[in-house]
Amino acid sequence: MPDKHLSSQFDADLNSVCGKLLEMGGLVESQVSMAMRAFAQLDAELADQVMDREREVNDFEITIDSACTELIARRQPTARDLRLVMAVSKAITNLERAGDEADRIARRTKHILEDSASHSINTAEIRLSGQMAISLLRRSLDCFARLDTKVAAEVVNEDKQIDEEFRAFVRKLTSYMAEDPRTISVGLDMLSIAKAVERIGDHAKNIAEFVIYIVKGTDVRHLPHEQLTQEANS
Amino acid sequence: MPDKHLSSQFDADLNSVCGKLLEMGGLVESQVSMAMRAFAQLDAELADQVMDREREVNDFEITIDSACTELIARRQPTARDLRLVMAVSKAITNLERAGDEADRIARRTKHILEDSASHSINTAEIRLSGQMAISLLRRSLDCFARLDTKVAAEVVNEDKQIDEEFRAFVRKLTSYMAEDPRTISVGLDMLSIAKAVERIGDHAKNIAEFVIYIVKGTDVRHLPHEQLTQEANS
Repeated sequence: MPDKHLSSQFDADLNSVCGKLLEMGGLVESQVSMAMRAFAQLDAELADQVMDREREVNDFEITIDSACTELIARRQPTARDLRLVMAVSKAITNLERAGDEADRIARRTKHILEDSASHSINTAEIRLSGQMAISLLRRSLDCFARLDTKVAAEVVNEDKQIDEEFRAFVRKLTSYMAEDPRTISVGLDMLSIAKAVERIGDHAKNIAEFVIYIVKGTDVRHLPHEQLTQEANS
Repeated sequence: MPDKHLSSQFDADLNSVCGKLLEMGGLVESQVSMAMRAFAQLDAELADQVMDREREVNDFEITIDSACTELIARRQPTARDLRLVMAVSKAITNLERAGDEADRIARRTKHILEDSASHSINTAEIRLSGQMAISLLRRSLDCFARLDTKVAAEVVNEDKQIDEEFRAFVRKLTSYMAEDPRTISVGLDMLSIAKAVERIGDHAKNIAEFVIYIVKGTDVRHLPHEQLTQEANS
């Protein structure tokens, strides 16, 4: 069998699906950033923009998935090349869902704006978690581009921090709503936004796990962190 | 190129990954049913059983995914066969996540049990949605087994009903918590369980969409329902 890496068309196809994944990732990252800005500034217009662009994210998913299947059918990649294409095909689902979460943040922001009792809400904690999630998403895409397993393991580990922040926030929100039941409606919106942020972190983690799978050939999705780090640095 | 369908080993491999998907589906369905029973009867022991078996679901995901990649590398399927393997590889992610939601229902049930204010909660609505979600999950696996696109389109359509039930429930829960702030903590647990049920319906919908993709070759994930039905029945 000839070394398929010698085929320049094959390489071009592989680079093309990876390039599209990163392009889609850039769009999703910008959707999440915009949604968080809409929430922080309670800006309805910005929220509308996020909702308008969701379709673009969906279109990317379909285009890239079809390119992946075609690449497999035509080029019959094996080993690491095949793992790369399979990982791209799955990572785009994570990106699409992260895009859905941006949409959710935008919708809930608009709902908060319609709620008259919401003028004094404290958005600081969610904004901070949002920054962490956006940074994780960016780094998960960076390590995918460079197939850097060390950074991938860091992303997986740091996602835990977002999860912890989320749990702490829920506890705080519960007592906040109990103290002043008029805040329950806006509290539920904020809970939904905080949950969306937590899920965006999960998607970044999933993308980082795929990087380790591509390079090392090991599926680390359900491994304890020590084992995952060992695998990533082996 | 020889007709790969004449290769009995190829067929055996395809049947094997599909069989494993259905086996995994059976396990997840039983996890969801058990979790909903634990919630309906506030049964801590049953909830523990669900949590104990989550690992089995995860193991299935890894085994099947690896079988899919190996099948592609060895047998180089194309057209419908390739779509089938790609769809199995993605559908198991949906199943694994539905399993995660069962775990979440079990955990929240235990949290409700620890909450002293929770003895008079009304679980009827969530139980009903839970029945609908379990039925959708079962039917999505049935139509996968028989590659029945007509039933697949029905599953996609019926998922909308679960989504509507969820929204109605959230509205009701909001006023319920506002009337009696002591119920906020248990209310948030119930919200989380209702959300898990709604997501299980989404996963069933995703699996049904893959059936249409396998048979018709069209990615219907973001199509409006009329177009999807047309595609399924074409």
